Amino acid sequence: MKRFVKYGIALGLTACATGLAYAQMKPEDAIRARQSIMRVVALNFGPVSQMAQGKMAFNKDVFTANALRLQSVWAMNVGRFFPAGSDKAVEGSKIAGFTDAKADIWSSPDKFKQAQEGLTQALDKLAAAAKSGDEAAMKAAGGGVGKACKNCHDDFRVKH
Amino acid sequence: MKRFVKYGIALGLTACATGLAYAQMKPEDAIRARQSIMRVVALNFGPVSQMAQGKMAFNKDVFTANALRLQSVWAMNVGRFFPAGSDKAVEGSKIAGFTDAKADIWSSPDKFKQAQEGLTQALDKLAAAAKSGDEAAMKAAGGGVGKACKNCHDDFRVKH
Repeated sequence: MKRFVKYGIALGLTACATGLAYAQMKPEDAIRARQSIMRVVALNFGPVSQMAQGKMAFNKDVFTANALRLQSVWAMNVGRFFPAGSDKAVEGSKIAGFTDAKADIWSSPDKFKQAQEGLTQALDKLAAAAKSGDEAAMKAAGGGVGKACKNCHDDFRVKH
Repeated sequence: MKRFVKYGIALGLTACATGLAYAQMKPEDAIRARQSIMRVVALNFGPVSQMAQGKMAFNKDVFTANALRLQSVWAMNVGRFFPAGSDKAVEGSKIAGFTDAKADIWSSPDKFKQAQEGLTQALDKLAAAAKSGDEAAMKAAGGGVGKACKNCHDDFRVKH
C-alpha cells in the first residue's frame, strides 16, 4: 500500500482535483502516465478498429464496452502528461527509457491540443453510436476514431 | 496508423472479442498491457485514496469520475495478461524490461483470481457509493478499494 499511495503523490495527482498544472510531474512519471494511457486506449481500440474494418466478427457487447471505456479513459486528458522536460527518454529509467514524442508537441501546443480534441469528438460520436446500437453507425464511427488517431500520430509521434 | 493497427493485432486483441485465451500473447506485450492497466488504475485511485483519507479536499465530481473509470478499466480483466512465460523481464526490451510479478501468480492461480475478484467487488461498491452521492459512503468505499489493492499486492507483487 505504501508504494501504491506513494505513486499517487509522486504523480502529482493532487493536481487532478485542484486544477493545478501537471507541470511539476517528474519527466519519468509523466512519460509512464501518458504511455500507459495510450496503451490502454490501444488495447480498447484494437477490437473496435478490427470490427469496424470487418477484420473481426462484430460483437456488439465488446464493441460497446470498449467504446464507452475509450471515452472514459480519454477524459483523463493525456495532453497534461507532456510537461516541459519530458521530451527525452530518462536515462537509466526502467519505466521511461524511451519516448516516441516529437518535439512538435512542445513547439506547436495549439495544434497538439486540437489533434487531441479531434479524438475527443470522434470518441463522443463513437459512444453515441454504440448507445444507439446501430451496427453500421458504430462501424462508421470506429473508422472516424482511427482517422483521429492517425491524424495526431502523423504529426506528433515518431515513426518506426 | 500502421503501427497502431499492428499493436492491436500483436496484442492478441481478437481474443477479447472471441473469448480465446490471451495465452498466445508475447510476454513483452502482456507485461506492457498489465503494467499499463495497473498504472491507469493507480492514476485514478490516487485522488480517490487521498480524498478518502482526508489528505486532499473532497471533490465529488473528480471522485465520481475516477470511481466509474476504475470500474470500467478493471473490467478489462488484467488477470488475462499474465500468460505463462511472462514471469520474467524480457531481456533487451524497452517496453518490458522489468516485472514486479511474483512467481505465486502462476503457482497459486485460484488465490490470484480471488484477489482480483476482491477488487472487482470493492470497485462495484465504490461505483454504487459514488452514484449515491453520499460523501461518507464514498470515502468508506474508497478505503475498501485500498484494502483490496493491498491484499493482492502483498501476495503477488514484489516489494521494493
